[in-house]
Amino acid sequence: MLYRLVITESQRQDNKIILHPDQEHYLRRVVRLNDGQFFIAINGRGNGWQVKLTPIGGEITNDIVENKELPMEVSLMVSLPKGSGFDDIVRCTTELGVSRLYPIMADRTLLKPKENKLVRWRKIAQEASEQCERLIVPYIAPPLPFLEAIQQMEDDSSRFIAVARNTDKHLFNCLNPLDLPSQITIATGCEGGWTTNEIQSAIAHNFQPITLGKRILRAVTAPIAIMALIASLAEK
Amino acid sequence: MLYRLVITESQRQDNKIILHPDQEHYLRRVVRLNDGQFFIAINGRGNGWQVKLTPIGGEITNDIVENKELPMEVSLMVSLPKGSGFDDIVRCTTELGVSRLYPIMADRTLLKPKENKLVRWRKIAQEASEQCERLIVPYIAPPLPFLEAIQQMEDDSSRFIAVARNTDKHLFNCLNPLDLPSQITIATGCEGGWTTNEIQSAIAHNFQPITLGKRILRAVTAPIAIMALIASLAEK
Repeated sequence: MLYRLVITESQRQDNKIILHPDQEHYLRRVVRLNDGQFFIAINGRGNGWQVKLTPIGGEITNDIVENKELPMEVSLMVSLPKGSGFDDIVRCTTELGVSRLYPIMADRTLLKPKENKLVRWRKIAQEASEQCERLIVPYIAPPLPFLEAIQQMEDDSSRFIAVARNTDKHLFNCLNPLDLPSQITIATGCEGGWTTNEIQSAIAHNFQPITLGKRILRAVTAPIAIMALIASLAEK
Repeated sequence: MLYRLVITESQRQDNKIILHPDQEHYLRRVVRLNDGQFFIAINGRGNGWQVKLTPIGGEITNDIVENKELPMEVSLMVSLPKGSGFDDIVRCTTELGVSRLYPIMADRTLLKPKENKLVRWRKIAQEASEQCERLIVPYIAPPLPFLEAIQQMEDDSSRFIAVARNTDKHLFNCLNPLDLPSQITIATGCEGGWTTNEIQSAIAHNFQPITLGKRILRAVTAPIAIMALIASLAEK
C-alpha cells in the first residue's frame, strides 16, 4: 500500500507537489522512499493524487478516483469525556466515516479543554484519515456549550440525542436502511449524563431522544457505536 | 445509581456478603457509604443482589432481576494490537455485550503479551461490567496463536473472519435480524492483516470472510464496530 500524506492546496501547483521539509524527511527517512517511488497526497477535501517522489518534491502521475466516504453527512455532537477520551473518539469515528465532530461542553462536563487540544484533535483526524484511506479529513469544531451549539445549527439534518436509561426507540429503528437521511446529527452525553434542561432544549430544536441498547455506554463508547451502526446501514 | 461490586461465590453465605478489606475500604472511603446504605453485589455469572452495608459486611435485601445481556453469545477472536489497544477493546466490547474474548497471537502480531496482562484484562472486564450494569463478566482466555485457537473450537457457532480490502459480503448482510444465531464467533486481524494461510485455515474451519465497510479499520476499532452492529441488531 502506498503511504498517504495530507497536503494543503497551496502545496499543489499544476502537476507538482511542494513538500515541506518535515514531510520530505518523513517520506525519505521513515517511510524510506527513494526518488521514483510513489506515495499518495490528499487534500482532505475529497481529492487525492498518486505522486512520484523526485529530487525537487513530488510529481503527480494520476488522480485517485476511489470513493470511501459514506453516502450521507454525519455530524456528532460529543460531550467531552474525561482525560484523553476524545482522542479515541476522533480516531475511531474518523475511521468509521464521520463528517463533522462538535466537541461539546455539557452542563456536567468536567473537562475544560486547553487551547492546544483543538490542534491536537485535528492532527489526529488527519492521521486517521490517512491511515483508513479516506480522501476527506473530518472537520472538528472548537468546543462549545451544548445550548450554544444547538442554537447555531442551521441545517435540516435528522437529529437525535442519545439518552441513557430511557425507554425511547433504538437508533436502529429510527433509520430506514432503504431511505437513509442525507444529513444526520447525533448528540451524546458525558459521564454524568445530560441535564433535563439540555434534553428539553434539544427536543425543542427537533432532536429525537434515542437509546443505544440496554447497557450503559461510556461517553467514549457511545459515539463510536453510533458511527459503527450508521456505517453498517449505509455500506451493507 | 447504586455502586456495583463483583464478588466471588465464596463471599456469599446465605443472605450475608463477606467483604474483603480492600472492598470495604473502597465502599466506605471512596464511594462513601455508611452502615444502612445500599450497593449492588454481582457474581459475574448472571446473578446480582442489592446489599445493605452493615458493621460486619453486607446483608442481601433482594435479588436483582434485570437482564441486560444480549440474547446470543458472542465470542471475539481478536488479534492483539500494538501497545495497550487491547485494554480499550476489553472495555468497549464488554459495554457492548461480548460474552468471550480470545486474545490472538496472529502470524503478524508484533506484541508478545506479558504474563500479567491477562490479570489486567480480566480486571478491566470486571470494572467495565460493573460500570455498564451487566451481571455477567465476559470470559477472557489466555492468549493463543490463531491456528491453535480455531483448532480447539468445539461449538457450532456461526463463524466470521473480518478481512480488510476484500469484496466479501458486509457482516450486516450475513446476519438476519429476524433470525439471529444463538452463538456467533468473529475473528479480527492485527495491524499487518491476516496471512493467506490464516484466512485459508479459518475458511477450512467454517469461518466466512466478511467486510466491515469501505475504510480500513484499525485492529482496535474493528472488534468494537462489530459488537456495536451485533448489539444494535439484537436490541433494536
